[in-house]
Amino acid sequence: MSYLNELKERVFRQNLELVKQKLVVLTWGNVSAIDRESGLLVIKPSGVDYSAMAADDMVVVDLDGNRVEGRLNPSSDTPTHIELYKAFPDIGGVVHTHSLNATSFAQAGKSITAYGTTHADCFYGDVPCARALTKDEIENEYEKNTGKVIIETFMDLDYMAIPAVLVKNHGPFTWGKTPEKAVENAVTLEAVAEMAIKTAVINQTVQRVDQYLLDKHYFRKHGKNAYYGQGENK
Amino acid sequence: MSYLNELKERVFRQNLELVKQKLVVLTWGNVSAIDRESGLLVIKPSGVDYSAMAADDMVVVDLDGNRVEGRLNPSSDTPTHIELYKAFPDIGGVVHTHSLNATSFAQAGKSITAYGTTHADCFYGDVPCARALTKDEIENEYEKNTGKVIIETFMDLDYMAIPAVLVKNHGPFTWGKTPEKAVENAVTLEAVAEMAIKTAVINQTVQRVDQYLLDKHYFRKHGKNAYYGQGENK
Amino acid sequence: MSYLNELKERVFRQNLELVKQKLVVLTWGNVSAIDRESGLLVIKPSGVDYSAMAADDMVVVDLDGNRVEGRLNPSSDTPTHIELYKAFPDIGGVVHTHSLNATSFAQAGKSITAYGTTHADCFYGDVPCARALTKDEIENEYEKNTGKVIIETFMDLDYMAIPAVLVKNHGPFTWGKTPEKAVENAVTLEAVAEMAIKTAVINQTVQRVDQYLLDKHYFRKHGKNAYYGQGENK
Amino acid sequence: MSYLNELKERVFRQNLELVKQKLVVLTWGNVSAIDRESGLLVIKPSGVDYSAMAADDMVVVDLDGNRVEGRLNPSSDTPTHIELYKAFPDIGGVVHTHSLNATSFAQAGKSITAYGTTHADCFYGDVPCARALTKDEIENEYEKNTGKVIIETFMDLDYMAIPAVLVKNHGPFTWGKTPEKAVENAVTLEAVAEMAIKTAVINQTVQRVDQYLLDKHYFRKHGKNAYYGQGENK
Repeated sequence: MSYLNELKERVFRQNLELVKQKLVVLTWGNVSAIDRESGLLVIKPSGVDYSAMAADDMVVVDLDGNRVEGRLNPSSDTPTHIELYKAFPDIGGVVHTHSLNATSFAQAGKSITAYGTTHADCFYGDVPCARALTKDEIENEYEKNTGKVIIETFMDLDYMAIPAVLVKNHGPFTWGKTPEKAVENAVTLEAVAEMAIKTAVINQTVQRVDQYLLDKHYFRKHGKNAYYGQGENK
Repeated sequence: MSYLNELKERVFRQNLELVKQKLVVLTWGNVSAIDRESGLLVIKPSGVDYSAMAADDMVVVDLDGNRVEGRLNPSSDTPTHIELYKAFPDIGGVVHTHSLNATSFAQAGKSITAYGTTHADCFYGDVPCARALTKDEIENEYEKNTGKVIIETFMDLDYMAIPAVLVKNHGPFTWGKTPEKAVENAVTLEAVAEMAIKTAVINQTVQRVDQYLLDKHYFRKHGKNAYYGQGENK
Repeated sequence: MSYLNELKERVFRQNLELVKQKLVVLTWGNVSAIDRESGLLVIKPSGVDYSAMAADDMVVVDLDGNRVEGRLNPSSDTPTHIELYKAFPDIGGVVHTHSLNATSFAQAGKSITAYGTTHADCFYGDVPCARALTKDEIENEYEKNTGKVIIETFMDLDYMAIPAVLVKNHGPFTWGKTPEKAVENAVTLEAVAEMAIKTAVINQTVQRVDQYLLDKHYFRKHGKNAYYGQGENK
Repeated sequence: MSYLNELKERVFRQNLELVKQKLVVLTWGNVSAIDRESGLLVIKPSGVDYSAMAADDMVVVDLDGNRVEGRLNPSSDTPTHIELYKAFPDIGGVVHTHSLNATSFAQAGKSITAYGTTHADCFYGDVPCARALTKDEIENEYEKNTGKVIIETFMDLDYMAIPAVLVKNHGPFTWGKTPEKAVENAVTLEAVAEMAIKTAVINQTVQRVDQYLLDKHYFRKHGKNAYYGQGENK
C-alpha cells in the first residue's frame, strides 16, 4: 500500500473515531493528515454521512487546494487546514469538530482556563479563543482567513505545547504530530471544556493552576524528561 | 411499491431515527410526511412503543384529518402537522419531539439566540418561541390552534430559512423539504439548544453573532451559491 | 404459570428496565408489584447485582413484611413499599430510584414545578418534596416512617393524579396501576426533573404553567375524555 | 492460578470496569490491588490503551516501587498508590480516575458536601478536598507527595468510613477492602459529585444533611448492625 493510501485509511479511521468519541453530531467534523514529503493533504469529503463513508472517499488535495485524487468535494474547511499545515511545520494532522462543550466556549468568546492536571497533561496553558474575524475576512476567503486568525493567535504561543484553539463563534480546531494525536487532543479538549464549565459553577472565584503544577504535568508527559507512558512521548 | 408505501417506510425509519439520535423519551415524538400530489399525510400512530412499531403501522390521513389508511389512531398532534402543511407549501416533512434542551427553552418561554455557526448553518436567525396559547385556544381545537400560533409566529419570518419553532411550555417542532431533513433539523436544534444554555453559563453577557457571520454560514450551505457538501443543497 | 410467578417475571423485567432507562447506578433502585387478591408483594432482593439477577430471585412478602417466598433478603426499602400499598388502594406497582436529576431535587428539598406539557401529561401538578423525617422517625422504623411521610404529603393531593414524590435528602418514589406504569412514571419524572433544572437556568423568573394548560394535557391522556394513544388510558 | 495471577486478572477486569462505568476518558485512570501477605502491588501499566490491554500486562511492584513482574512501566501514579497502602492498612485496592464531575470539584478546590442518602450510604461525611501541594512537593517526588498529602487529609478522619479524597487541581482517589469495592466507591463518588453540583444549582442555600440521617444510612450498610444487602457488609 502506498503511503498516501495508508494515510487515507488512517484519516478515514480517525474520522470514525470522532463519532465513536461522541465529538460529532451529524456530519460536523473533519480530520486531515499531511504527507510532508509530497506536500499532499488527505481530508474528509464535505457533508458525507459517516455511516456511508469509505477510506476511498477521502480526498487528496495539494497545498494550493487543488484536488489531486478522489471523486468527492473535500471538506469546506480545507483552506483552514492548509493554512495550519503551512504555518505549523511540525504538525501531521488537523481536526475540526463542533463538540458541544468546546464549541460553547467558542460561542462565549472565552478561552479555556487551565484549572487542573487533566488540562496541563495536554495543554501547556489556557486554550486560547481567537479574535473574531472582521466582516471583510468573513466575506472573502472565509476559511483561509479562519486559518490566518488561528496563526495570528499563536504568534506568541508554542503551537506544539498548546495544540488547540477556539475559533470565535465557531468551534475548536486541534492538531498534532499525527492525525491520531490530533484526535486525542480533540477528545481531551472536550473533556477539559466540560470540566471547566462545571468547575466555575462549583467555585465562581476559582483561579488558574499555579505555573509549577502546569510545568510538572506538562513535562511529565512531554519532552526528554517525560516519564508517563511507555516512552513513546520522549 | 406505491409512493404512499414508500413514504410509510420513510416516515417509519425517521421515527426510529429520532430514538437513535436520543431525541425521544418513551413515545414523545412524531414524524410525518406529505404526498403533495394526493394531499395525503403519513404520520406515526399515537402512543405506540417504538420497539413494537412497524412501517405498516404508520397512519394515512387527509388534510381534513380523516383517516384514510391504517388500523391505529394517528398521533394526537396530527392537527398541528396539518396546519403546518397547509400554511407552508414548500415543506414535505414535520417533526415534533420533547428533546430535553430545546424543550427547556420552550418551557422557559425563550427563543434560542444564534450564538454561533452551528446555529447559522441550519437556522438563519434566532429560533423563535411562539406566544402562549390563550385559555380558549387551549380548550377548543388545541392541536389545531398550536399549528395556527406557529404560523402566526412566522408571519414576518421565512419558514424555510428558520425551519424550527418552540411551542411555549410544550416543545419544538421542526420541518423541511423531506421528513429526513426535518429530522436532521431536530437533531441540530437540540445540539444548538444545549450549547446555547452552556454558552450563557460561560458568558452571561454574550451577544448574538454578527449578521454577516449568519449570512456567510447560512448561504455557505443554502441557495445557489452554496459550496458545502456534494452539491445537494443547491 | 401462577399469577405470582407471572408477577415475579414482570417485576424482574421492570427492574432491568430501570437499568436500561439509565435510572439506576450500581444497585440503587427497586421495583415491586402487589397481587391485591392474595395481599402478597413481589420485590427485588436487596443489594443484588442486576447482571446476576434472575426472575426467580424476586422475593415475595406479605403486607406485614414477612418473607413468604425466596432465598434472598427483600429490598431494605420494603417497609416503604408496604405502607404505600396499604394507603394507596389503586396502585399495583411501586418504584424507587436514585435517578440523578430527581434525586438532586430531593437533596435540594424542592418540589418539581410543572413547567410544561411533558410534566402535565404525567403529573397533574408539582411533584411534591416531602418534609424531612424527624430524628426519631429516622432512628426507629426508618423505612416504614418514610412511607408514612409520603402518605402525609398526599393528604390533600390525589395520588393517582400525581404518581410521584421526592423523599427529602433521599430520592424519588413513583407508583402506578401496574409495575410497568410505575417505571414509566419514573422515566418521565427524571426527564421532567432534568428539564426543570435547565428551564430555571435559562429563565430565572420562570413561572408554573397555567392551570388550564395543566388541565388540557393531563385530561388529554387520562380519564374518560382521553384521546391520546390507542384508547388504553381511558 | 497463583494468588498474584488471580489479582492481575481482577485488577485488569476492574480497570475495564472503569471504562464501562464511563469514569475514564482515553487512558486517564488506574486500579491497583495489594497482596498483603507478600507486600506486592498489582497495577495498570502507564498510558496503555484499554482496548489493547490484557491481564498479563498488569505490572507487579513491591512497596519500594521496584518492578517485580511485567514488561511495561507501571502507572506513573504508582508512588501515590504505595503511600496509601502503607498508611491505610485495611485497604486492598486503590482507584484513580479523572471522572468529570468529581474532578471538577477537585479543580474547584471544594469538598463534596453530604447532601443526601446516596452520599451517606457510601461516605460517612463530606468527601474532603486535600490541600494544594507546595511548589517543592510538586517538583520533588510529586506522586509520593500526592499520597502524603492525602494521608495528611485523613489525620482526623476515618479512611474506611470515607474511602475517597479529591486531590486539589487533579482528581479523585478512592479505595476499599478490595479493588472491586474501590471501583464501586469511584462510581458512587462520580454520581454523588454530579448530584452535588445540581443540588446547589437548584437550591443555592442548601445545607449538609443532619448527622442522624448520615448515621442511619451509613450504619444501615456498614458495621455489625448493617441490614442492607445479603449480609456481605457485616
